[in-house]
Amino acid sequence: MLHQGQCEACRKDAPRATPEERSLWGQEIPHWTVVQEHGVDILERVFTFANFTQALEFTLRVGRMADEQRHHPSLLTEWARVRVRWWTHAIGGLHLNDYICAAKTELLYE
Amino acid sequence: MLHQGQCEACRKDAPRATPEERSLWGQEIPHWTVVQEHGVDILERVFTFANFTQALEFTLRVGRMADEQRHHPSLLTEWARVRVRWWTHAIGGLHLNDYICAAKTELLYE
Repeated sequence: MLHQGQCEACRKDAPRATPEERSLWGQEIPHWTVVQEHGVDILERVFTFANFTQALEFTLRVGRMADEQRHHPSLLTEWARVRVRWWTHAIGGLHLNDYICAAKTELLYE
Repeated sequence: MLHQGQCEACRKDAPRATPEERSLWGQEIPHWTVVQEHGVDILERVFTFANFTQALEFTLRVGRMADEQRHHPSLLTEWARVRVRWWTHAIGGLHLNDYICAAKTELLYE
């Protein structure tokens, strides 16, 4: 299970996720989509809440998990939603770390 | 001083900031710029930090201030930066509230 994984330090020569890995790992995080920005693939999900306070608390929970994993997302906090994005700067794309962190993010929402 | 103000409940018929007010109030928050998104004017500043933890803590401080003021920003938290945006949904643009909250945000960074 992805959510039980731990991020490894990611170097520039680390392998990007293959299409087969993306398909396999994606089954564990069905609410996430791959979007592109400036040619970089990014895992994204928008989480919705009843109000800003709940959205902010979720941002904090995801941020603390990210610090523990030493892997850092983009967190867009708005009135009643948080857009979470995971990708790996060092390789300019998606790594197993991103799928692990997306799965851990899901657990923080439940 | 703007940062000593308190946000008032903003209705759809509340007045947008005039060009003269923007110019005057803008002098108190010189690091902020007005950007446009989907035709809506937005006050924006990007704050930089030494790491993600500091960025996340700043997001939390701004978010708590926002809840106190009952006026809510867009907060984009990334590795070592936070992009803060203030605008007023109800009037589709900038209100005194946004300048007050931008000034209060500055104080939280100092």
